[in-house]
Amino acid sequence: MPLNIPDSSLPRVVIIGAGFAGFTLARKLAGNNYQIVLVDRNNYHQFQPLFYQVGMAGLEPSSICFPLRKSFQSDPGFFVRVTEVLALDTAGKRVITEAGNFKYDILILAMGARTNYYGNEEFEKNSIPLKSVSESLYLRNTLLGDLESALLLKDGEDLAPWLDLVIVGGGPTGVELAGALAELKKYIIPRDYPDLAHDQMDIHLIQGADRLLPSMSVRSSAKALGDLQKMGVQVHLGQRVLRIDHGRVSLSDGTSLFARKVIWAAGVSPAILPGLPESAYAPDQRILVDSFLQVHGLEDVYALGDIACVVSPDTPQGLPQVAPVALQQAAWLAKFLRKKSRRPFMYTDKGTMATIGRNKAVVDIGSLHFSGFFAWVTWLFVHIYYLIGVRNKLVVLLNWTWSYLFFDQALRLLIKPFTKKV
Amino acid sequence: MPLNIPDSSLPRVVIIGAGFAGFTLARKLAGNNYQIVLVDRNNYHQFQPLFYQVGMAGLEPSSICFPLRKSFQSDPGFFVRVTEVLALDTAGKRVITEAGNFKYDILILAMGARTNYYGNEEFEKNSIPLKSVSESLYLRNTLLGDLESALLLKDGEDLAPWLDLVIVGGGPTGVELAGALAELKKYIIPRDYPDLAHDQMDIHLIQGADRLLPSMSVRSSAKALGDLQKMGVQVHLGQRVLRIDHGRVSLSDGTSLFARKVIWAAGVSPAILPGLPESAYAPDQRILVDSFLQVHGLEDVYALGDIACVVSPDTPQGLPQVAPVALQQAAWLAKFLRKKSRRPFMYTDKGTMATIGRNKAVVDIGSLHFSGFFAWVTWLFVHIYYLIGVRNKLVVLLNWTWSYLFFDQALRLLIKPFTKKV
Repeated sequence: MPLNIPDSSLPRVVIIGAGFAGFTLARKLAGNNYQIVLVDRNNYHQFQPLFYQVGMAGLEPSSICFPLRKSFQSDPGFFVRVTEVLALDTAGKRVITEAGNFKYDILILAMGARTNYYGNEEFEKNSIPLKSVSESLYLRNTLLGDLESALLLKDGEDLAPWLDLVIVGGGPTGVELAGALAELKKYIIPRDYPDLAHDQMDIHLIQGADRLLPSMSVRSSAKALGDLQKMGVQVHLGQRVLRIDHGRVSLSDGTSLFARKVIWAAGVSPAILPGLPESAYAPDQRILVDSFLQVHGLEDVYALGDIACVVSPDTPQGLPQVAPVALQQAAWLAKFLRKKSRRPFMYTDKGTMATIGRNKAVVDIGSLHFSGFFAWVTWLFVHIYYLIGVRNKLVVLLNWTWSYLFFDQALRLLIKPFTKKV
Repeated sequence: MPLNIPDSSLPRVVIIGAGFAGFTLARKLAGNNYQIVLVDRNNYHQFQPLFYQVGMAGLEPSSICFPLRKSFQSDPGFFVRVTEVLALDTAGKRVITEAGNFKYDILILAMGARTNYYGNEEFEKNSIPLKSVSESLYLRNTLLGDLESALLLKDGEDLAPWLDLVIVGGGPTGVELAGALAELKKYIIPRDYPDLAHDQMDIHLIQGADRLLPSMSVRSSAKALGDLQKMGVQVHLGQRVLRIDHGRVSLSDGTSLFARKVIWAAGVSPAILPGLPESAYAPDQRILVDSFLQVHGLEDVYALGDIACVVSPDTPQGLPQVAPVALQQAAWLAKFLRKKSRRPFMYTDKGTMATIGRNKAVVDIGSLHFSGFFAWVTWLFVHIYYLIGVRNKLVVLLNWTWSYLFFDQALRLLIKPFTKKV
């Protein structure tokens, strides 16, 4: 009985990863003639689109995380196992984990994506990622800690590096973070730190492409750029980061920026596990799947979400690595495995959106583009709708209402992790 | 301008510590013809009586912490400095901190108490303290992590040490923690971990004295003991801990208990700073103050809260180290410094209480002793009342209502701290 999972007459589905894809599939498949084992390194599902708000002290981690065990309390055939998966053994139909190995009948790969430093260790070492709630808390603590340290500088010490921030990457994460920082600078910091020269705080946003939000319409890109610039964000378009070293960020046009905090939001790469044949990978290292989400050449192995690359004549590059794709794939795969559908997976693009600040957002739905207050309200409601858990929806709504009414964020706590002496 | 605090024509009051004593004094003294500098190692005030609920995943840290800067936004003569105080220089009227030194006109010592291991390094190394919100989160993570690990044991490995808990200390913290654990075992764990043999979980409470809650009435002690025993807690009265070593707790009667988690709630000792004369200390290492809270022999230095020992003919041992003393002293000292009163400080004992579980608490008010539902409601309202911040009061009330109605706690997240590779 490896990992204490009892044998069962039902086929065993092992799902690796409890993100949008894995968690949604698990919820829709539970209680349907499968024994299900959900494996993740954390005991919770995390809602990635709001990491930046945790980083900015606007939301608590518990408001955007959901304990896995709570979802599956009522299903005796459901097993949550919190451990690190090390490799796959597709010949033996086994998953190799830190805690031991176990067999699967059907394997679902939903490991998602991780921060992509493009192989540059210096970038990884000297920047702050934002791909987990733990990393978001680290950003929050660093931001608040640097503000406190700025107040303790000796005469003659340079204030700017303690205040300034550089965000690398002009996709939705970078844009939303830059907007949130600009608002923190405008509304919160002057009141909390009246004795700090907060006007010296510079927020830089570096984007390699020639426009922000390249996955959105040209109109939305321009609107986001204009809004951020009006809010005081210094946007550097068409710039690559060459080095990040000792608080200095060197750009491809020769500019140097000085900041202790460099936030890396410049891309993701799939979270790879050893054990799949070379032929299973697309050129971008995602796992190639057919229109039934089946991994090429491996029966009973499916992949979905950010790790999967669905190639079809319509999408030669695969689908984008975004939450709606993962959610639709999970819903489709649950139906397919429950034998409720034999039709191939089809993605419906429902649109894209990004928020920039108070009453400011951009939304593209097909050929419809809108921005401003109505776009912002749309963004809010879509995010509340997709957030898991009634309590979380309520708490986030309360927090947002409070912040909106009082221009305030309640969570400016720098709680340092306690560790035991060993 | 050391630590960026401008010179002022107003006398400068430096308050060390933002616990009940220091924070309350700061709030009451702000805006009253003093320049005030509040120094703490954290940027928040923490509400100690509810640490155990953070440890048990019932409340978020942000619900029982309050950002210092938020309280003092409106007072331009108020300065918060987050740093570690290293020593006092009473001859030079200076405070020595990690970030530099600065002068005071009036010094307020409110550093509070820390965990007392009675000089035993083994106890410190092998047990979990509960004297800060960081330590409470550490306890929560350890508890949840051990439950997950228990599910990953190999055949033949012993489950018990991963499930069992030993609490050392039968004061309010130990009793409230034991009760909360018993409820976690009864209501939450069976639903979240249906595949775990949770009936094997033993909760031990070790108390050196011959009764629990020795600061309360004999009637309340007996009631607490009876309630905890009915809830399945194994209470060991009149037992000292001799050793804590490799998951084994040796008691003075020869008993050995085996548990990975030993929680140390067996006492506190004052948080001492170098620089006061020997004569300023009471035998228990608290700082001796007169009935004007003035430190013996040092003009313009006051001490209050857990660190102070007010000796009077009525209280030859000093006052107890509890929140009401700190709160009353802070209120009195604010009045005194504002020259609104010249009368010495007098403590009014308003009673003591401890909660044990759902509808279970004990309350002593003078010769009045009551327990059960009404005591429990009293406990709830007193704690909500003294909690700082409207938002915190609301959030805690909502959380408690939710837990009470649904026998559930929403926060079972094991969020591991992220640390940067260096």
